[in-house]
Amino acid sequence: MTNQEILSHIDHTQLKPYAVWADIETLCREAITLRTASVCIPPAFVERAHQAFPDLNICTVVGFPLGYATTAAKLAETKQALQEGANEIDMVVNISDVKDHRYAQVEEEIRALKDCCGSHILKVIVETCYLTEEEKIAMCRAVTAAGAEFIKTSTGFGTGGATLADVALFRSHIGPNVQIKAAGGVKTREDLEAFLAAGCSRIGTSSAVSLLTGGQASSY
Amino acid sequence: MTNQEILSHIDHTQLKPYAVWADIETLCREAITLRTASVCIPPAFVERAHQAFPDLNICTVVGFPLGYATTAAKLAETKQALQEGANEIDMVVNISDVKDHRYAQVEEEIRALKDCCGSHILKVIVETCYLTEEEKIAMCRAVTAAGAEFIKTSTGFGTGGATLADVALFRSHIGPNVQIKAAGGVKTREDLEAFLAAGCSRIGTSSAVSLLTGGQASSY
Repeated sequence: MTNQEILSHIDHTQLKPYAVWADIETLCREAITLRTASVCIPPAFVERAHQAFPDLNICTVVGFPLGYATTAAKLAETKQALQEGANEIDMVVNISDVKDHRYAQVEEEIRALKDCCGSHILKVIVETCYLTEEEKIAMCRAVTAAGAEFIKTSTGFGTGGATLADVALFRSHIGPNVQIKAAGGVKTREDLEAFLAAGCSRIGTSSAVSLLTGGQASSY
Repeated sequence: MTNQEILSHIDHTQLKPYAVWADIETLCREAITLRTASVCIPPAFVERAHQAFPDLNICTVVGFPLGYATTAAKLAETKQALQEGANEIDMVVNISDVKDHRYAQVEEEIRALKDCCGSHILKVIVETCYLTEEEKIAMCRAVTAAGAEFIKTSTGFGTGGATLADVALFRSHIGPNVQIKAAGGVKTREDLEAFLAAGCSRIGTSSAVSLLTGGQASSY
């Protein structure tokens, strides 16, 4: 697999709470030069990044990373992010509702956000590290039924990240219109190739670009 | 210091992303029985908790834990939480703005949330683990100038929690109307007494109640 093939599937990510504007600028420049699928950045930086890099595909996060903002709050965040220039939304489900097996409620929330997104891509983070196999399967069904484009494994802030076993499980239970994004701990070239080979369309990572360019990306 | 003196300063806290309703119910019952200052719970549980325990002092979190939701999103969350029965709001500052030394912007955001809170208590989490001493002092000034009731050390989700050194620093730089809440890693009786003796009015912890009651709180 060539570097460019891999990079075209990367959501080049900077979601640290202490990232400064210079970090976001560097990320955006790298993404443009290296033709990654997108940048994934905090909501508070979306407007500035869109103004500085108007052609860049910007992804941001909603209800992130704990998932327990209200549905109304997630909707307000989504609407504002799209207005300010985001093209893709990575939302976190209400994990408490999943653990309480209120699956209809979870599906309803995803559907509300999908309605708000219109033709923009919605990725649904289910945070697999906290879920049983039954709950993961229920999330595959909820994401499929609600019409979201992606199911995403992890926030990168939980106790665990993407696993190939979870990707295989997702593939068995999602509908044909749902794609998979792996995130959390995907750090080596072997990891990147393995997750892509397993059927992921996107990988969220903060380290892929520096890895694939031998740490030279920021000097492009 | 008696158990009851300590408990009266505790924000009895359950902010795990996978907490279920039964966990929140237990927390609320313990808080009522043991007369803690409040319960601190996720926004998505506020309405249900307020309906089930109408007299309980409910605190919730806004822009939590990463702080990089937009000001508009934080305001929408605050407004909804107060409408649904929250009495106190623990917000996280935009840490990126702090690190970029955009202190006026941080103060403006705090002031906007304070305006929205009216007479309800606003606690401002500055997440000390990511800040330099200069930045911590700037936050003492911003919280004081914006009229918030509390400065709070930590979310409990960062790389470090409350320290006695930070509490001492806060005391030297906050105005007379600002109180201090310590949170993050305050786990032993010695910790609780030391932070109260150092001048904290509140302590946010998930373990104090079980500690002070010998693990029997949930059977009250």
